[in-house]
Formats: sequence, structure tokens, C-alpha cells
Amino acid sequence: MQFTVLHQSQSTGARLGRVETPHGSFETPAFMPVGSRATVKGVTVAQLRATGAPMVLANAYHLMLRPGHELVARLGGLHRFMGWDGPILTDSGGYQVFSLAHINKIDDDGVTFRSFIDGSSVHLSPERAMAVQNELGADIIMAFDDCPPAADAEDLGPRRLQAHERTLRWLQRCRAAHRRADEQALFGIVQGGTDLALRRASVEGVCNVDLPGYAIGGVAVGETAADIRRVVAFTAPLMPADKPRYLMGVGYERDLVAAVRAGVDMFDCVLPTRNGRNANAFTPSGRLQLRNAAFREATEVLDPTCDCPACAGGLGRGYLRHLFLSREMLGPILVSVHNLTHYQRLMLDIRRAIREDSWSLLADDWPVTREQDPSHV
Amino acid sequence: MQFTVLHQSQSTGARLGRVETPHGSFETPAFMPVGSRATVKGVTVAQLRATGAPMVLANAYHLMLRPGHELVARLGGLHRFMGWDGPILTDSGGYQVFSLAHINKIDDDGVTFRSFIDGSSVHLSPERAMAVQNELGADIIMAFDDCPPAADAEDLGPRRLQAHERTLRWLQRCRAAHRRADEQALFGIVQGGTDLALRRASVEGVCNVDLPGYAIGGVAVGETAADIRRVVAFTAPLMPADKPRYLMGVGYERDLVAAVRAGVDMFDCVLPTRNGRNANAFTPSGRLQLRNAAFREATEVLDPTCDCPACAGGLGRGYLRHLFLSREMLGPILVSVHNLTHYQRLMLDIRRAIREDSWSLLADDWPVTREQDPSHV
Repeated sequence: MQFTVLHQSQSTGARLGRVETPHGSFETPAFMPVGSRATVKGVTVAQLRATGAPMVLANAYHLMLRPGHELVARLGGLHRFMGWDGPILTDSGGYQVFSLAHINKIDDDGVTFRSFIDGSSVHLSPERAMAVQNELGADIIMAFDDCPPAADAEDLGPRRLQAHERTLRWLQRCRAAHRRADEQALFGIVQGGTDLALRRASVEGVCNVDLPGYAIGGVAVGETAADIRRVVAFTAPLMPADKPRYLMGVGYERDLVAAVRAGVDMFDCVLPTRNGRNANAFTPSGRLQLRNAAFREATEVLDPTCDCPACAGGLGRGYLRHLFLSREMLGPILVSVHNLTHYQRLMLDIRRAIREDSWSLLADDWPVTREQDPSHV
Repeated sequence: MQFTVLHQSQSTGARLGRVETPHGSFETPAFMPVGSRATVKGVTVAQLRATGAPMVLANAYHLMLRPGHELVARLGGLHRFMGWDGPILTDSGGYQVFSLAHINKIDDDGVTFRSFIDGSSVHLSPERAMAVQNELGADIIMAFDDCPPAADAEDLGPRRLQAHERTLRWLQRCRAAHRRADEQALFGIVQGGTDLALRRASVEGVCNVDLPGYAIGGVAVGETAADIRRVVAFTAPLMPADKPRYLMGVGYERDLVAAVRAGVDMFDCVLPTRNGRNANAFTPSGRLQLRNAAFREATEVLDPTCDCPACAGGLGRGYLRHLFLSREMLGPILVSVHNLTHYQRLMLDIRRAIREDSWSLLADDWPVTREQDPSHV
């Protein structure tokens, strides 16, 4: 994997870059749709490509449990399995194990938890997370980190310190266990919660390990939007300028713009698809809840400037409301594709704002990215 | 609406034709996907068009209850509402009322039943079925008929006769109540169950009313496949040769071929989408149940001769199985689109078989259309 900074913004920390992978290259800042189980929910590969998505995120945690990483490998690897020939990133499962799983045991060796498929006992360690991701075959793979939920971290100061130190030890083991470093770029993950001193220590520890890229983890795990912004604004500039910086699991449009201005290059988030499935449509001026009776008689499309199938096809908000009230699959499908298109158009305009230093034009075209409360910066 | 017979098969009753509507023309024999609630389940209009679907069926029964035909009219009519600018046919609701609804009262005036939305009392009569369909604005609309389930008809000889006679009286009222005959072609529906003498009487009564087309109704309402074949082979040739003959709600591939050979021109059926949602994929040599463990390690596509997104995209049966086991929407989406593509490819080959009188080639390419038991003809 190669990363090149093409242009550094003069007025902000933002930069335009290019990531080259064995499955193609893309410009940054870039947004990755989430396809945990080797499918972006409700969206075909052709529709996904048409949104402009440069890369897809899949999840080692979900795929190791079902259908199994060995099976995916036998079926030709993740790219062939899901029919996506562009770049793929897999998350290691650290976040999922600590946030979603029923954990039986955590120690320095790894984590033992119950499978969500059949309740059986599953063990995940740095070595196993690397083996799973090596089999899946994504272009970028993530270190296995100790990522406690924000609530735990608030309650338990020592737990946060333990997670930070363990993440560093596990990163060394991940690097040692990685068997396909020539094809798959391993990214380290900075932890530290909302404690800025600990964030600084984590950056120093993690980025001291020479890797092709680094991520900011442990955000969007239950803390406030203001805390996310504060942590990102503090952490991103500390990370190496010549490596891609990936902010995991964030977020709404104004969170992305704030993070880009702090120097973040890559994003993933479930919001466009999760909200889409729940009748929540993104527009440049805010979100619409399509189940609302106000849309009953509405013939307007979601966003007249959007070229997604629903908007370009002239489908009115009243029709989309009908689909959701009728529990028709086409509602979640169309609004997911619309929301993904919205995110990719925003990223396109963000890249132009960096190139042309035209942040005020960006805010004019995307009112939703404006600060509502400047004290939150 | 215009109907032209382009070619009459020499060896069978089959004919190649063309239907022209205010929203475009198509060749017959033709298969219409079912989109009862103004959406073919899980399929976008662009995907539907790409399958080769010439026309869509929507349902007055579902749409009058939700979102309401008046609302659809205010939102610009059914074509604009669902973003499909090709031909649309609406069923009158007769079949749904008699098969699906909780009926409170049937008499010569009409039917009173409970709304599936809120349990309220709804009345449907020939006049109201026409008013609803006039508001929806489809290119072809169907008469409101008395269509008893097959089980009722078997048990109750007098009920079948009553349904036949009432259907004739209601047809006259439908024609008188139809307000948009210049834009919307009204089709009469032949009833009579599995009683061939009653079928003959129904054809004589219904086709004596001068209308742009006629349908065979009251099939696929619970009787055996052999009974369907027997009724269709008997009834279709009795119907006027210069009008399109539409067989409602049928069926599997060999049922379609048998009906075409009897002289049927138009079809609709939920099978491609309903089976698709249930992991049941059509191929020229038979159906695959994708949840079957036999497909766990399968990298083959559903059908190497198919050009649907799943097959052309190289998605293996093992991946599709994974989607269904993971309850991912993409499984139902992809297999629905595949099955619709399968049906449209079959219709294309059927039209070629008529044109070239090459029925044995058709059977070679589509083994699934061969008779398993010739006594069923």
C-alpha cells in the first residue's frame, strides 16, 4: 500500500491524498461504507460502485463466526466472495468483541467470548485476529486492540490505562503474526479514550511501530459528540503526516468535516445504511424522517441535487413513505443507496474544498456541516 | 390499447403478438412481474427494466387500502408514483377480496370486508373497483369478478354457478362505470372453476361483451397443476383470437409453455419474487434451494447463461447461501432479480420458438419446461 499527500491545506490541517492498494487506488479524505458480513446491507455491488464508494469495510469478527474465514478463503477470498474487486479493509473485531459480545474472559493472551451464532466459546487474540484477516485477504487489515466501551473507561480509570498498555503489547504481537505484509497493509490503532494525556501516550507508543497507516480507535463508543471532536482535534495532528490517518466509526457530516480539518484521511460509519433502513434520509440541509405524516402528500425527491436512483428516478418522498409504512424492502434499499450517495458527494466536495481552500463554499452547499455550537470545536 | 397478432404458430395454438399501450408497447407472450403495493418487492425500477420486464402488475386492493388510490392520484398517478414509465396493469382486487380478506358480506351489490390495515369495514363493488382503478391510472385494468377459492367451488356447486352469473352481471356494471376507456383498456375475466361446461358458458358470456382483452381467472386458486393445465387448454382456444388472452396468476415455467401453446398471450405471477425471497433460485434445469448445505462450498454462479447482476457479477452459490443464513437483505434482492431475469429470458425464447417453430430447441435449452408426465397435458 502506498500513501501520497497530494496537497496540504494552508488554512487547516486537512490534506488531499491518494491511497494505492493491490485492488486499486482512491483519493482521500475517503469514506468507506460498512459491509460487516461481506455485504453493504441492501445494496448490490453495482449500486455501491455507482455511489462512488472507493473502498468497503468488512468485519473479521462477523465473518470468522459466519460463514468462517477458512470458508471465505476456500471460496477465493473476500474480494471474490462478495464480488467487489475494489479495495477492502477488514476491522479486526476488537471493537465488536468488547462492545457487542458476551465476554467470558479477558486477559493478556486475548478474549474468550460467546459466538452470536450458536453460543459456543470463541477465542480471539492478536495472533488469531491476524490469521483470520490474512485468510480473508483484505487490502488493509487492522490490529487487534483492547477497546473498552466509554462507560467502562469513565468508571474505571485503571481499566483505561490497562487497555492502552495492552493495545501496545498486542500491536507488537499483531505485527509479528502478520503473514501477508507484502499484500495487506496493517494499521495500528490509537486508544486512550477521552483522556488526552493517555491519547498522546498511545500515539507515541502505537506510531512508534513502523506501519503503513494508523487509526484513531476508541471513539464513537458511547461518549458525547463534543468529546469525539475534542479527542480527534487533539490526536490527529500528533500522528505521522506521511501515513494515512483513519478515524474509526465516525460519523455525521459535521463530524467528518471537523475531523478532515484536523488531518484525518479515512472514515467508515454505519450511519448512511443504518439510518437508511430506518427511513432516515440525509440531505445537505439535514435529515428527513420519512415516516413522518408531513411527507404523505410530498412529490419532491429527497434532494434535487442528488443523482441516486431514487432522486434521479423522480421518486417522491410520499412514495418512499408509502414503502416504509408498507414495510417494503425497496424503502430501506433506496434510502440506503441515497444516503451512501450523499456521503460520497460530501467527500467529493470536501476534497475540492481542500484543493481550492474553499471551506465557506462547502458550508454553503452543505449547511448540515456548519457548526451549530462553536464551543464544541 | 392495440393488439396485433404478428405470427400464428402452425404446430400449436401459440401466437406472437404486440400490445401497444399509452406507456409503450411490448411483444407477447409476455410475463408481468407482480408489484402489488406499487413496488416489485426488493427490486428497483432500473433493475426491473434491466431484467427485460415489459409491464408491471399492481393491485387495486392493496393500494386502495394503503396509501389510498386518491392519494396516488394526487401524487400524479401510479406511473409517476412508482417511477415506472412503462405499461402497468392493475388487478381489480376481486381475487384478493375473495382469497385473502376477512369477508363480512357478499351480495349482488358487492363485497364488504375488513381492512388489513386497521380492521375497518371496506366495501368493494364493480363501480368502486372501476373508480379505484381509474384513479390509479394503469394502462390495463381488470373487471371486478366473483372469484371463489377452488375449495369453496368444489364443495359448493351452486356457489360456482352463482359466481359465474354474478361475474357476468358485474362485468356489465364495470363497463358502464369505467370513466377512462380512451386511456385504460378494461379486460373481462372468464370464471367457471374446473367445470369445463361452466368455463364455456363463462367465455360465451364474458367475451360477448366487446372489450380490448380477456383474462382467464379463477385458476391457481388452490386446484392441482393438472387441473390448471386442463382448464387452460380447454378455455384459451375458445376466446377471441384477435384479443389478448391473459392467464392470471400462473405459474411455473412448464405451465407457461403449456399455456402459450394453448394460445395465451399474457402472464403474471409472484413466483420469481416470492421464491427469490425464500432462497429458491430458478435455473433452466430446475430450482435450487440455496439454504441447502450442499451449496456451502459452491463457487458456481446460479446459472452461467444468465446475465443478471448476481450471475454476471460472478457471485457464487456459497456466497448467496451465506447471505440467506445471515438474513441479509441482499440475498432476497439478488435472487429475486435473478429469478425475474430467468422468467424474461424464458419468454424471449418462447417468442423465438413461436417465430421459428422451434419447440424442441426450447425444450433443450429449458429442460424445466419439459413434460414430466405427459398425461398431465
